[in-house]
Amino acid sequence: MASVNANYLKLKGSYLFIEIGRRVAAFQEAHPDASVIRLGIGDVTRPLPPAVTAAMHRAVDEMGEEATFRGYGPERGYAFLAEKIIQHDFAPRGVTLSLDEVFISDGAKTDTANFQELFAPESIVALTDPVYPVYVDSNVMAGRAGDLDASGRYSRLVYLPCTAENNFRPALPDRPVDLIYLCYPNNPTGATITREALKEWVEYAHQTGAVILYDAAYEAYIRDPEIPHSIYEVEGAREVAVEFRSFSKTAGFTGTRCAYTIVPREVQVTAPDGSRVALNPLWDRRQSTKFNGVPYVVQAGAAAVYTEDGRQQTQAVIDYYMENARIIREGLQSIGLTVYGGVHAPYIWVKSPGALTSWEFFDRLLNEAHVVGTPGAGFGPSGEGYLRLTAFGKREDAEEAVERVRTRLSV
Amino acid sequence: MASVNANYLKLKGSYLFIEIGRRVAAFQEAHPDASVIRLGIGDVTRPLPPAVTAAMHRAVDEMGEEATFRGYGPERGYAFLAEKIIQHDFAPRGVTLSLDEVFISDGAKTDTANFQELFAPESIVALTDPVYPVYVDSNVMAGRAGDLDASGRYSRLVYLPCTAENNFRPALPDRPVDLIYLCYPNNPTGATITREALKEWVEYAHQTGAVILYDAAYEAYIRDPEIPHSIYEVEGAREVAVEFRSFSKTAGFTGTRCAYTIVPREVQVTAPDGSRVALNPLWDRRQSTKFNGVPYVVQAGAAAVYTEDGRQQTQAVIDYYMENARIIREGLQSIGLTVYGGVHAPYIWVKSPGALTSWEFFDRLLNEAHVVGTPGAGFGPSGEGYLRLTAFGKREDAEEAVERVRTRLSV
Repeated sequence: MASVNANYLKLKGSYLFIEIGRRVAAFQEAHPDASVIRLGIGDVTRPLPPAVTAAMHRAVDEMGEEATFRGYGPERGYAFLAEKIIQHDFAPRGVTLSLDEVFISDGAKTDTANFQELFAPESIVALTDPVYPVYVDSNVMAGRAGDLDASGRYSRLVYLPCTAENNFRPALPDRPVDLIYLCYPNNPTGATITREALKEWVEYAHQTGAVILYDAAYEAYIRDPEIPHSIYEVEGAREVAVEFRSFSKTAGFTGTRCAYTIVPREVQVTAPDGSRVALNPLWDRRQSTKFNGVPYVVQAGAAAVYTEDGRQQTQAVIDYYMENARIIREGLQSIGLTVYGGVHAPYIWVKSPGALTSWEFFDRLLNEAHVVGTPGAGFGPSGEGYLRLTAFGKREDAEEAVERVRTRLSV
Repeated sequence: MASVNANYLKLKGSYLFIEIGRRVAAFQEAHPDASVIRLGIGDVTRPLPPAVTAAMHRAVDEMGEEATFRGYGPERGYAFLAEKIIQHDFAPRGVTLSLDEVFISDGAKTDTANFQELFAPESIVALTDPVYPVYVDSNVMAGRAGDLDASGRYSRLVYLPCTAENNFRPALPDRPVDLIYLCYPNNPTGATITREALKEWVEYAHQTGAVILYDAAYEAYIRDPEIPHSIYEVEGAREVAVEFRSFSKTAGFTGTRCAYTIVPREVQVTAPDGSRVALNPLWDRRQSTKFNGVPYVVQAGAAAVYTEDGRQQTQAVIDYYMENARIIREGLQSIGLTVYGGVHAPYIWVKSPGALTSWEFFDRLLNEAHVVGTPGAGFGPSGEGYLRLTAFGKREDAEEAVERVRTRLSV
């Protein structure tokens, strides 16, 4: 008699985006002439850069010819892409990586969700709050989260609140933890981390034997050269950290799917007999068993991001989104709203005016300004009282959204 | 202090293909002028059909234009592809599916490896022996397999031997099991299953409450109209079976990555409180949390497989491989070797001559005929004494391999 993985039954319903969709649909039905601007979802809108599409066309042609056709690629990805990643994304910042430390995959979502498989089921997990929900849900599915309480917290997870009160800088855990999820630049708050603060985390991991799962999917949006792009810019991180990166928000790959994860050879965890086991060969085994590599055509497109044209074109797209971020951030500030993020990140984290909850602010914004955000409470209990806007839309929508908030919002 | 998932330490080393590579490399070093023919690995060699590459080119162009660019697609895949799958792969065989029962993914390997996550960790797993190693390894990683014994068997897995003695037809399990992996046409033996035999499995699952995980990745190679392509051709299968399909071997997608899994709404498993839980929404939740959909360009290419041109072109490729299979099968038979499979499957399962083990036969074939196969023992204990050859190579290699075996093999 087949039985369910009972951990799945502990998942909170995925109410957030369903509920957003429901409220937007109800509004549009009641106001069929209203033009709604969607700044809620974190999806890009600019097309793939010409250098990327040109490379993909060439790769499609190769796949159509017997002499150049490619079947199964390496599960960890082609060396031609891994070499470019090392050379362009890490070497200029003083980080040395070898080819076998780079694992190319179909998404940072996939990798941040799956990496926890390598750890013991009873591991204690710490995560910042608010947080990307995938870190939580993947650990719920694995049985590490415990039970959900009335406050929206799971009993075995260690929440590290990030609010305006602590300048969105999480304190070190107040009890022993085994895994720590960090995301900088942060989704959803748009906060960054200084080199000094990152150093504290690396030292903490060394002292306690914890492993840091570092999500750097938004590093391309950093503008200040002093802010670290990679956790490996901090000495000692190779022994304690795994890093996740993505082409999704860098080069418009949300619908094209390519990302990569760095697993340094030095990161080790403890086996039941007390011996130490390296994570790198375990992740290699996991990927070889449960994954079959990224499409050749997609890897060829990703490699083109690192050509001179590709770099200029992707930078232009990032600049475009960051100008949106500036327009939204400064526009809302000029109206008197309190706004965080949006400087080194494509996310703007808006404080609900007055005593409004996240959802009340969401409703006001939708009903009065016809603008859709994402209620901060959807990212965790400490997101209550905030709302996330994204910079990934069109320029005219960013401008129009600000103008509407200015002229129509009653709070 | 981070600890390892100790189940990973129970994995058998992936010795098979490493050992094959080691022996082939050693042979080539000793015989630099020998031209080795590789019929070991199950990877395709024919290029993508023109209808597919044309559709991929169009899709790349769409991704390069703002008006037609696509960001995140549905995690379960685009309806334009799911509709074609239902219409062409199932409707003609009398199977009715709805859109929300089709989950498009990046590979049948990925899905057959990941689907076990939905079941209780203590589930008892039955699998045919020999078997596709991913079914075993993914359950070892999940802690369901127990310990490896000297015979190469895991203590908690239920092995269903498939050998010439039982005509490669596994007996029903002799003890209670919760999950059953079946693969037809079979990798590695090339065996098929009759409608009557499949009906017995479906009835068994109904009687015992087991769930069947049915891998039909090679269904396109079936030639006899009486052999079922889908388990849903058997009445009652919608309540007890999940089916895995792939474009890899149908349309040359091993390096392009697209597959799909059917999870009928009726399949249920038991919760700890005795209530019944449907697998379909659980798999939806799993995919939404840990996966982000297949690249649009790839799904557009897969949809083109179902155009009139696409169907003719993919059929021509399958015919090409099946002619290879015939050449190998009949050629080896004419030499006096005992050969199975290769009629409705791209795999030829060769009995080792005399009392040779799989590896002894492998060595003879390599050293005398310069032909590489895969030792059957690598697929499980009951694969001992067999060797797998594949039909996915070039025509001239299939012909030359047979000629070499005829003229050079001493056994």
